Amino acid sequence: MHPLNTPARHLPTAFLSPQHVAEIVHTRGLPAIFQGLVETLRADFLRWPEFDKSARVASHSAKGVIELMPIADASTYSFKYVNGHPGNTRQGLSTVMAFGVLADVDTGIPLLVSELTLTTALRTAATSVMAAQALARPESRVMALIGNGAQSEFQALAFHYLMGIEEIRLFDVDAAATEKLMRNLQGTSLRLVQCASALEAARGADILTTVTADKALATIVTPDMVTPGMHINGVGGDCPGKTELHPEVLRRGPVFVEYAPQSRVEGDVQQMPADFPVTELWQVLSGAAAGRTSADQVTVFDSVGFALEDYSALRFMRAQALALGMGEPLPLIPALADPKNLFSALGNAVPQRVEGVQALDSAARSVAYSGA
Amino acid sequence: MHPLNTPARHLPTAFLSPQHVAEIVHTRGLPAIFQGLVETLRADFLRWPEFDKSARVASHSAKGVIELMPIADASTYSFKYVNGHPGNTRQGLSTVMAFGVLADVDTGIPLLVSELTLTTALRTAATSVMAAQALARPESRVMALIGNGAQSEFQALAFHYLMGIEEIRLFDVDAAATEKLMRNLQGTSLRLVQCASALEAARGADILTTVTADKALATIVTPDMVTPGMHINGVGGDCPGKTELHPEVLRRGPVFVEYAPQSRVEGDVQQMPADFPVTELWQVLSGAAAGRTSADQVTVFDSVGFALEDYSALRFMRAQALALGMGEPLPLIPALADPKNLFSALGNAVPQRVEGVQALDSAARSVAYSGA
Repeated sequence: MHPLNTPARHLPTAFLSPQHVAEIVHTRGLPAIFQGLVETLRADFLRWPEFDKSARVASHSAKGVIELMPIADASTYSFKYVNGHPGNTRQGLSTVMAFGVLADVDTGIPLLVSELTLTTALRTAATSVMAAQALARPESRVMALIGNGAQSEFQALAFHYLMGIEEIRLFDVDAAATEKLMRNLQGTSLRLVQCASALEAARGADILTTVTADKALATIVTPDMVTPGMHINGVGGDCPGKTELHPEVLRRGPVFVEYAPQSRVEGDVQQMPADFPVTELWQVLSGAAAGRTSADQVTVFDSVGFALEDYSALRFMRAQALALGMGEPLPLIPALADPKNLFSALGNAVPQRVEGVQALDSAARSVAYSGA
Repeated sequence: MHPLNTPARHLPTAFLSPQHVAEIVHTRGLPAIFQGLVETLRADFLRWPEFDKSARVASHSAKGVIELMPIADASTYSFKYVNGHPGNTRQGLSTVMAFGVLADVDTGIPLLVSELTLTTALRTAATSVMAAQALARPESRVMALIGNGAQSEFQALAFHYLMGIEEIRLFDVDAAATEKLMRNLQGTSLRLVQCASALEAARGADILTTVTADKALATIVTPDMVTPGMHINGVGGDCPGKTELHPEVLRRGPVFVEYAPQSRVEGDVQQMPADFPVTELWQVLSGAAAGRTSADQVTVFDSVGFALEDYSALRFMRAQALALGMGEPLPLIPALADPKNLFSALGNAVPQRVEGVQALDSAARSVAYSGA
């Protein structure tokens, strides 16, 4: 390495790794983290009209999708990078990996770069609980959990801690995934019931949560699994061509979504006509629209994950990190003594009188006047 | 800090700070960096149809704009985060700050997180040279450089090293900016001529480069400044409501752009009718369209900066960093022994039997059936 004459000065961008987030969860405790996330999410959903919202920007390939999810209010901008590659697990990689950024709207300074793989799982479960608190019967105690992969423990514990769920009925086409979940949660007071089918898991469930990963038009939840009073928390159908709920299930009760323009493309409601009625969750939270109106009604939360949830989660984690003194500085943006003197950031990297420039560019400068 | 039971394992994302980039430039030399960038840009522009292109996603506020610029080919995805806040300099901050990411299309793994504040200045100048090599007269020796801010030295040196420019005629409404440029470049063999006006700077110039920063419909280049055979390299008009060239200047010669759908919104051609003829630069490079066809023709490169240029620059800097052993690992994405066991990344952060959950969530669970 060649030492440079200029000191390395940078703007104060903070960095949170997965290890930092795990330390924050360890210090605060998982129930308090879920509770704090739900409170932050609810506060932000209640000021929904203040946000500059757009559907995510997706780049699809044969094996998966890479997405950017930007959102901003008048003071803070955020975006998430997230992929979805169902085949990744075959090579020992996660299906979903993510990171995100918070930035200051007035200056454009990136304030935080954070892991969002763990944090997305936390905020998705918190969003599910926030919806269920408005839509499920408060006396719900039994939840079916179909899909026991990377997201499943987060869903199980968030509903245990914040919705009073006492029994989880488990099913996954991969029995090893279910066994992994049972090992991970064996120390909790949850009753975990391994079931032989999705139908068996749904039996007696007050809440039916689906978090499957296949990028396919799957039918995980069929009409025979739905019973009066059930709340369906559909988390895995979140991408064009990736669904979980039978169309008849969507017709059984009112369907609630995060952001209708995005959900009609990505959610289970992608299977329905463009005029299929959906209600945005923020309207229920604000009292502008009805949530559950009777104990025997079926309610459906067709969740796809919206940029606002990452905005809320990033703000929450940043606040925790600041309060706990966790995280690290990330030297991402140069701080300049004179902002018009970006060149100074090269330090003494600038050659002085250069010999041989002619040789360097003789080939490059050989372009002559061209005809089409 | 509480030590966690799990070792911190992460995917191999590399990080390049501005200091790392300065070290790469220092080691390779600025002429070789510009030359390598031009070669990488040209190779990528020549396979233009292979890219999944989209206009950038902009979030505008009263004080500026924050943009995401994604692009991908079949193997590599990239995006840039970049702001534009002309008022930033008043508080000692840069107008433009940026960072970017390279990711693997097949898995979604982020391979590189890199500063792009310095690198954008380098790639913008390299793009200007690539265009000028196709559009300017090869015997060009004198360049006017209007706007002597953060980008100006990069433009001056790239044209010096790779186009044989020997004299730069300087003008900026802020004389201190011009003096800063002259100090920064005093050791080079460039003849630097400070001018009292843009018109004076343009006198005798073979190439006229504008890199001004005001977010305004400005008219920096007026028809009286344009002489036969001139190549106009318009860099600063790159945002809706931010222009530099008088409409009559755009009518003086063929206008070349990077990506027409974006340039018609953001470039100086935003002032022109939707059917105003423009030629995409890649077509000139590939020989599919004419560039300059005579020595006395006026040519205009209406540059706005396109995502492909950042893709190329990120790939180039990553290759340099790998070859030189520079950069650092960034613990951004957890590496899991079992990808379905994301929960394990929380380590021992998971509480076991939790007491007091009822107290924690009693308020949150108080939502009863609601009417609209």
